[in-house]
Amino acid sequence: VRERERIQRLSELFGVARDDGIELGIGDDAAILRAPGDLAIVWTVDAHVEHVHFERTWLSWEDCGYRSFMAAASDVSAMGASPWCALGALSLPPDVSDKDFESIADGQKLAAQAVSARIVGGNLSAGAIVTLTTSVLGLTPRAIRRQGAAVGDGLWICGEVGLAAAGLRALALGHSAESVERAVLAWRRPVPRVTAGLAMGRTAHAAIDVSDGLVCDVGHLAEASGVCVAIDLALLVAHGGDALARAAEAVGADPVDLALNGGEDYALVAASSAPIDGFSRIGDVREGMGVYVRDERGERRVEATGFDHFAPRG
Amino acid sequence: VRERERIQRLSELFGVARDDGIELGIGDDAAILRAPGDLAIVWTVDAHVEHVHFERTWLSWEDCGYRSFMAAASDVSAMGASPWCALGALSLPPDVSDKDFESIADGQKLAAQAVSARIVGGNLSAGAIVTLTTSVLGLTPRAIRRQGAAVGDGLWICGEVGLAAAGLRALALGHSAESVERAVLAWRRPVPRVTAGLAMGRTAHAAIDVSDGLVCDVGHLAEASGVCVAIDLALLVAHGGDALARAAEAVGADPVDLALNGGEDYALVAASSAPIDGFSRIGDVREGMGVYVRDERGERRVEATGFDHFAPRG
Repeated sequence: VRERERIQRLSELFGVARDDGIELGIGDDAAILRAPGDLAIVWTVDAHVEHVHFERTWLSWEDCGYRSFMAAASDVSAMGASPWCALGALSLPPDVSDKDFESIADGQKLAAQAVSARIVGGNLSAGAIVTLTTSVLGLTPRAIRRQGAAVGDGLWICGEVGLAAAGLRALALGHSAESVERAVLAWRRPVPRVTAGLAMGRTAHAAIDVSDGLVCDVGHLAEASGVCVAIDLALLVAHGGDALARAAEAVGADPVDLALNGGEDYALVAASSAPIDGFSRIGDVREGMGVYVRDERGERRVEATGFDHFAPRG
Repeated sequence: VRERERIQRLSELFGVARDDGIELGIGDDAAILRAPGDLAIVWTVDAHVEHVHFERTWLSWEDCGYRSFMAAASDVSAMGASPWCALGALSLPPDVSDKDFESIADGQKLAAQAVSARIVGGNLSAGAIVTLTTSVLGLTPRAIRRQGAAVGDGLWICGEVGLAAAGLRALALGHSAESVERAVLAWRRPVPRVTAGLAMGRTAHAAIDVSDGLVCDVGHLAEASGVCVAIDLALLVAHGGDALARAAEAVGADPVDLALNGGEDYALVAASSAPIDGFSRIGDVREGMGVYVRDERGERRVEATGFDHFAPRG
């Protein structure tokens, strides 16, 4: 009965969409959609798991719904697509109250609205831990993959890198100074990059979103494209600006390390031979393989240190 | 690194599909699809959660992958659609070995093959409990909803009801007699009803799959359609046959109660004015509301007792 009432509540909250090819939303065995015939569909799923991706003390339930949604929507933006509609599967322990549940749904709705997507269904179940799994469908005239980066392309970025990792670290350490506020917000409320994703249009040769860390994710792009990517640290630090420097200092971390290895900001990175609206250049694409960084000391190959979604590193 | 290797393994196992409108499968930010323009898309997600839907001692890892996939695919069949492609999000604790992981994936693949669907992506994460979340896209010329049942329609069923619940009860009680073997198999390896789903074609006015119990799910259909549904217990018991009777006796349950309230067989139930290939008639649709059963003692309204996916009831 409780599940039934909650589904009813979601149906009211998310609305019954009958536009944009959505023929039926919440309330049946499945949602019914019609994709415009001339667009490609991109499709992703992402799970947000308690004790792995977050602790309850680190964010509000609304934040929880919001960021779990954005992590999934980001994959769609990274393909140069517009988020179209979404399903949310929620596993919730009994101690998550109806009010908490509503806050999670509010967060999902806010995030969906921010990317102009509709939530058209989902699944509710019990579970010993909170798990929010979001699947998003997006539409695009041309999907941009990880492969396709060409030698001579610039490496372009839209959005912060490292700030969310500084925020996560602050939360894990219990810091709450004014200097980490923006970083905490970056972690709790990742900014959608839909406009930037669309701006990649026909210009970008390859793209990826930074969920696991810049070196790690750019490494995926380089490998898929069969190229080497070199990141200019001066450009990267300039891009990060004062907020990253201050947050890094507050949590006792190196801003360059945060920028290179911090995940969950969901910045977009693209390889392109021409500038892209809203993107800053931070490097270039060359022959070879792997990821290099260069600074006044010269150039060296870097490996991803493997961003841990959970634990702060010492 | 382990996640990377596991994704690579899934990519090998599930194959790189380049047919049926699948342009890109596993390995990028999202899958890329092209839906045939004249078909509706139906879309669902379902979670299979340890300690809620199963205990590890009740099934093999391959069963686990298989049944989690079928539960989601069933929602697509219930809309009269063909499963097209799927994403699987797996949250796995550290003690789930690489071998266990492969067995889960084998089960997903077997299930996908059984319904002619392709697994085109997913998500891997850690988690304190095993959670397998499957999203399925299906295609159909005409989606059949819960609403639409008309007064005078027959109520038709394809597949067992109650057998899986008997099997679950046997597993929970530790029974392993020959008399419960079919019931245990019904729970571990639910039979896909794709052909039956397609057979509903233009004939069925409304349909649903039985995941929570016949009375509960038919109640949803009745409510959505604004009608009353009457189930003939003699027809239902005849449909259940000897296997249900024997399994019910072995686990000390009433076969009629199992058939009315047992979930997870994923039978399809349709309201139709004409017979449907592969379906048996078990009742009819009338004016009014709610679900009634009739037997030699007469007719009475029944409420769903609420099938508990986990605990056997005493």
